[in-house]
Amino acid sequence: MNAKAATGGAWVLGVDIGGTKTIAAIVGPDGKPGPSSQVATPAREGPRAVLETAIRTAREVLAGHRQQRDAHAGHAVHACGIGTAGTVGPDGTISYATDTLPGWAGTDVRGAFARALDLPTVVLNDVHAAARGEYAHGAAQGHRTALVVWIGTGIGGAIIDAGTVLAGRTSTAGSVGHVPVPAGWTGGDRRQCTCGAWDHLEAHAAGPAIAARYLRLASSEDLEQASRAAADLRAIAALARAGDSLALSVIEQAGTAIGAVLGGLSNMLDPDVIVLGGGVAAISDLLERAIRRALADQALPGPAGTELAFSLLGPMAAVIGASVAARTSLLQVIP
Amino acid sequence: MNAKAATGGAWVLGVDIGGTKTIAAIVGPDGKPGPSSQVATPAREGPRAVLETAIRTAREVLAGHRQQRDAHAGHAVHACGIGTAGTVGPDGTISYATDTLPGWAGTDVRGAFARALDLPTVVLNDVHAAARGEYAHGAAQGHRTALVVWIGTGIGGAIIDAGTVLAGRTSTAGSVGHVPVPAGWTGGDRRQCTCGAWDHLEAHAAGPAIAARYLRLASSEDLEQASRAAADLRAIAALARAGDSLALSVIEQAGTAIGAVLGGLSNMLDPDVIVLGGGVAAISDLLERAIRRALADQALPGPAGTELAFSLLGPMAAVIGASVAARTSLLQVIP
Repeated sequence: MNAKAATGGAWVLGVDIGGTKTIAAIVGPDGKPGPSSQVATPAREGPRAVLETAIRTAREVLAGHRQQRDAHAGHAVHACGIGTAGTVGPDGTISYATDTLPGWAGTDVRGAFARALDLPTVVLNDVHAAARGEYAHGAAQGHRTALVVWIGTGIGGAIIDAGTVLAGRTSTAGSVGHVPVPAGWTGGDRRQCTCGAWDHLEAHAAGPAIAARYLRLASSEDLEQASRAAADLRAIAALARAGDSLALSVIEQAGTAIGAVLGGLSNMLDPDVIVLGGGVAAISDLLERAIRRALADQALPGPAGTELAFSLLGPMAAVIGASVAARTSLLQVIP
Repeated sequence: MNAKAATGGAWVLGVDIGGTKTIAAIVGPDGKPGPSSQVATPAREGPRAVLETAIRTAREVLAGHRQQRDAHAGHAVHACGIGTAGTVGPDGTISYATDTLPGWAGTDVRGAFARALDLPTVVLNDVHAAARGEYAHGAAQGHRTALVVWIGTGIGGAIIDAGTVLAGRTSTAGSVGHVPVPAGWTGGDRRQCTCGAWDHLEAHAAGPAIAARYLRLASSEDLEQASRAAADLRAIAALARAGDSLALSVIEQAGTAIGAVLGGLSNMLDPDVIVLGGGVAAISDLLERAIRRALADQALPGPAGTELAFSLLGPMAAVIGASVAARTSLLQVIP
């Protein structure tokens, strides 16, 4: 019996530690998660609290799995895969993190989980994990080269080719949020990025950037409405769907910036598919046309035909992808 | 005796078909070319003339190799590798080409060479070939992930990871010349690219773009001098070295555009090394500071430490790299 036959059917714990929520689930060999547990990430309480919360959530899911009476019951869990915000070094320690998780850099996530749960554990960036998920079981399935872009509070990404996510020298590869918006595509606006540089995509098209632009451009009358709507991406999208022309134009501008950056990256990577996920996938009806138009404007004849798809796994993508990473790297299974 | 032992020492014919010149040489297993033959590419005479010239040059080199009395003598040539301008499909036919080689698209380069020389033949894009050369025997040797950028009449590139050049769905990957210059980094200039889009890197930083910018900005007095100098990159560089402030500022602006694009791509690829080649490598003394400054401005903390190197193989990079590709893919040798 070879390694694949021995462990291909393994059940794996998948965990996603994000800036706002932490999710855990047991994932079957078919990529389908069992019942998941979701809690708020105590980001402001520091890395110890974040770790403890994630480990407690994981334990609850493991305990629930043991007691289950459904199709997921009776399968031992062989490994743990964790997707987390921040840059993750090869040893499973966080090497860089933004203010989304204050103090997270330096945390030995792999060691903490492996000790607490007594399971072989692999840790990777949450968008790298989401890309593994979409590649094995979602919108990038069946393709060779995929560019996966996750747009929410921040913007992350991953390049995956022949099943392998490009990590890069410092595990930073795929940082599409920090690719600059092309000249002529910023809508006449100049914005500083969380990283300090100017006009990176994240500063123009992440959820908070879209909301901030709406607030900057809104008249005092609009402002009252925007304020009522709490001015997050979901609220601006609701306004747009109700016909608010400013909301529509602000979202279109974000789509234009996204498409222009993706057009340049398509020329560079010539992927089989670009998969978009995160909050942006939920408002794809409002963004898609602007993204496609700008992408087509920038792309060479070949890359102009790149397939544009939206996440099929949604909020579970990183949990599922982390389980794929664990199954592949720890249990030596070709996914 | 395994395949590697059988053919690892193979001698291979390498050919580089560029827009202005065609070069051929026999390349030894150590990546060192024997005597090379170089002729002008008859680009304006059409694809048949280009092919005939390249095949004739290749035959001369093969004949010379058989008659040699030096270290290269006595080794049978087992395969042929060809690097060529344009996008090359997996079957060795040109799928897309710019005006550098008019009518080149549709040419079955692999078939023509294989029939004429009776050698197993592999064909790849010239900058993909140069990247293979620098990776196996040049400035990217010993690294895992490299971004290779060739700047001359046009701008091409290649992403190479773990020995494999990313080809992409339509073999277009690596087209760094068609990545847009970021907002704020064009020097207040807007330029249309050969591909039709605006402000791609090639439109701002290829040799002809630098020369054209000099001519646009030069006063009539300067113009006379520029005209005398024939206004190509080499001439502008000579003016810059002589202290011409306009030439210096035009070259610095090109370096700034290059660095800004490379900074965004560093965040995306996080390579171990970026290798710059082509005409630009010859004026690295004038460009390097501007490139490094703009790259550092755009890059995240990890990618900001990316090594920047200049081609070690120079004009022979594509010939050597094409031989590596032939040795690897046709003779099943790990380079």
